[in-house]
Amino acid sequence: MDSPVITLTTDFGYEDPFAGVMKGVILTINPEARIIDLTHGIRPHDIREAAFTIGMNYKYFPDGTIHVVVVDPGVGSGRRPVIIETGKHYFVGPDNGIFSMVYNMEPGAYRVINISSEQYFLSSKSPTFQARDVFAPVAAHISRGVGPSDFGGQIEDYTRILLPAPVMVSEDRLKGEVILIDRFGNAITNLSMEEISKLYDSNPEGVLKIFLKGREVLLLGCYSEARDKGIYSLINSSGYLEFFMYMGHASSENGISIGDNAEIVITGRTGQA
Amino acid sequence: MDSPVITLTTDFGYEDPFAGVMKGVILTINPEARIIDLTHGIRPHDIREAAFTIGMNYKYFPDGTIHVVVVDPGVGSGRRPVIIETGKHYFVGPDNGIFSMVYNMEPGAYRVINISSEQYFLSSKSPTFQARDVFAPVAAHISRGVGPSDFGGQIEDYTRILLPAPVMVSEDRLKGEVILIDRFGNAITNLSMEEISKLYDSNPEGVLKIFLKGREVLLLGCYSEARDKGIYSLINSSGYLEFFMYMGHASSENGISIGDNAEIVITGRTGQA
Amino acid sequence: MDSPVITLTTDFGYEDPFAGVMKGVILTINPEARIIDLTHGIRPHDIREAAFTIGMNYKYFPDGTIHVVVVDPGVGSGRRPVIIETGKHYFVGPDNGIFSMVYNMEPGAYRVINISSEQYFLSSKSPTFQARDVFAPVAAHISRGVGPSDFGGQIEDYTRILLPAPVMVSEDRLKGEVILIDRFGNAITNLSMEEISKLYDSNPEGVLKIFLKGREVLLLGCYSEARDKGIYSLINSSGYLEFFMYMGHASSENGISIGDNAEIVITGRTGQA
Repeated sequence: MDSPVITLTTDFGYEDPFAGVMKGVILTINPEARIIDLTHGIRPHDIREAAFTIGMNYKYFPDGTIHVVVVDPGVGSGRRPVIIETGKHYFVGPDNGIFSMVYNMEPGAYRVINISSEQYFLSSKSPTFQARDVFAPVAAHISRGVGPSDFGGQIEDYTRILLPAPVMVSEDRLKGEVILIDRFGNAITNLSMEEISKLYDSNPEGVLKIFLKGREVLLLGCYSEARDKGIYSLINSSGYLEFFMYMGHASSENGISIGDNAEIVITGRTGQA
Repeated sequence: MDSPVITLTTDFGYEDPFAGVMKGVILTINPEARIIDLTHGIRPHDIREAAFTIGMNYKYFPDGTIHVVVVDPGVGSGRRPVIIETGKHYFVGPDNGIFSMVYNMEPGAYRVINISSEQYFLSSKSPTFQARDVFAPVAAHISRGVGPSDFGGQIEDYTRILLPAPVMVSEDRLKGEVILIDRFGNAITNLSMEEISKLYDSNPEGVLKIFLKGREVLLLGCYSEARDKGIYSLINSSGYLEFFMYMGHASSENGISIGDNAEIVITGRTGQA
Repeated sequence: MDSPVITLTTDFGYEDPFAGVMKGVILTINPEARIIDLTHGIRPHDIREAAFTIGMNYKYFPDGTIHVVVVDPGVGSGRRPVIIETGKHYFVGPDNGIFSMVYNMEPGAYRVINISSEQYFLSSKSPTFQARDVFAPVAAHISRGVGPSDFGGQIEDYTRILLPAPVMVSEDRLKGEVILIDRFGNAITNLSMEEISKLYDSNPEGVLKIFLKGREVLLLGCYSEARDKGIYSLINSSGYLEFFMYMGHASSENGISIGDNAEIVITGRTGQA
């Protein structure tokens, strides 16, 4: 594995030296590691946001990439450190549900290792900064070729949190919700292109209608198709339904929040025609 | 081209994974690329700020550097993706005026290519994230040695926005404006050392006076020469006139904004003496 | 020195291109340099915060690392640029006290060089951006093997600021203060595990009590041991006493500020029993 890539995803922010120190630990073990920040801007303690962020984006990294993900309000308590190995990627972090979307994306194609071999930890370890003392050094050792099994035994009772999933509330109505707000104020839902296609396939002659908190919203092809400062929707670059305001901040200017109801309805059914 | 440098300049901020994903795409195509963030802190949709930021700073990077610049409110619409090739650098981004200052800095010494060869794009492309799907992969392929002409044909009708330029309002008076505010609250103008020298050369025995919104401001050599919390000016590290408050935030504490009038007057003309 | 590591610690923030430009300058001189941001989030002009940040964290980087630290309100004035050489690390920055904690950590094991050899500076230098024109190029040249002595002569009258130090106010009472607030609102004091151990050793049968602004605070082993939203304390990952609120922001929700009084008292002395 030449010049392996290690990504970092945390809620550490950018004001403090926490992420920088992780990189120092990694380079001390493997000077050849290429370290990329996916983001350190996860909201503090928000395991769900971290789960979505890594789950939607890990596929854009090269085969063999090691993803360190640390949002860890339970650090120092009993929760276990884990490695997840899929066919192409490794994931390292706390077993607190942070990898739940990765599990969803790779059904039956991963195994979870409970990290227990302390010889790979930083010697001066503290119970409050496992990102530095456990996750960074374990990732660095994987990047040097140590196999996941060398860090501990496989487990089956790993933690999986229920991420908000779309629900078919009737045969013509798919219900989801806003799961992320980005810097531009765009509100990303959990309604994927795949789910929308299934709804459409059920009635190919129907017309799709999009609703945000009960109000109908037009579906456009890209941001700049909007002709005014209203709320519109599109299928975003990750393949999910997203609400936006062109050249504005939909979330703050229109009070759109995480958890807000989003629905897709297919109308004008063939049976009714 | 060993270990080519690719810089990223965007309005993506740091809370979201957008810049991180671009890096994943680049490293998948060229594991040897060295990726440097110039900044992701351009104000959302501010093409002019991006134009100044790349225009003032690209010269500090090694020959052969590829600069990806993406502030792109029109993503997905008809505006073209382009490569600009100068003698020493490459620039990749949307043809929305973002490279206008680069054009100004390299008169007659560049060509603009309209990127059209889709084989270099990410296969799963979306209309809303060309930074990931077009600009990042194109930059990565350039860094591997693909020539600009392989991406498409040269164009002459590229977009150039009028950046605010200094105006000689009379033979002893040069008028400019504040074009950027930095983190320290310093207000950078478009009045360059070069323009100021020309004014001075026109009357070498004259005395230069600096005005901000009509109020005279002293010109100092460096920040710490200021002896109080007043507004002062200096020629900054990019060679432009800048207004500042020592150990304070000139912009927020004194209401200085982008677009504010700045003038340099040369007085005590030889003819009048 | 293959692939030497250069770290950057500044108050430049992330909105502006300052840190990016430093990296361009470094890579122009040494394309093999590996540049790591320790942080650019030091509060503007806060020399003391920079001193703590580099002093607490440099040890996590590989031997041979070159640490560039720039918080420099006096840039352009008479204050000298310096290199500090310890057995394992180099430090480059202004002689304004920023390296005071490094001096404390390496007693008798360092020397300070006054940088004066201008041939290593950027040719187009400005008095206002020595990070770009002096510190970045000097660090790059060190990373290529230029010895510290080649940059100038050793000095003894370097600047050392008095960092707030713990005081034994009586034989059973150690007084310190809050010196840093991190992103999570945790309040880090200058009371180190080492100092606390000495207090404990003076009365091994005594009981330690922690006080924040006169109010007793319980000492826990890790964040998640807290059972409510009160203020608790622990020994943090750097080995210092820290006050926190579990899943909350202790500083903003409880008005804890830098400089707040923190005390450790050992009670129930053997002599009194």
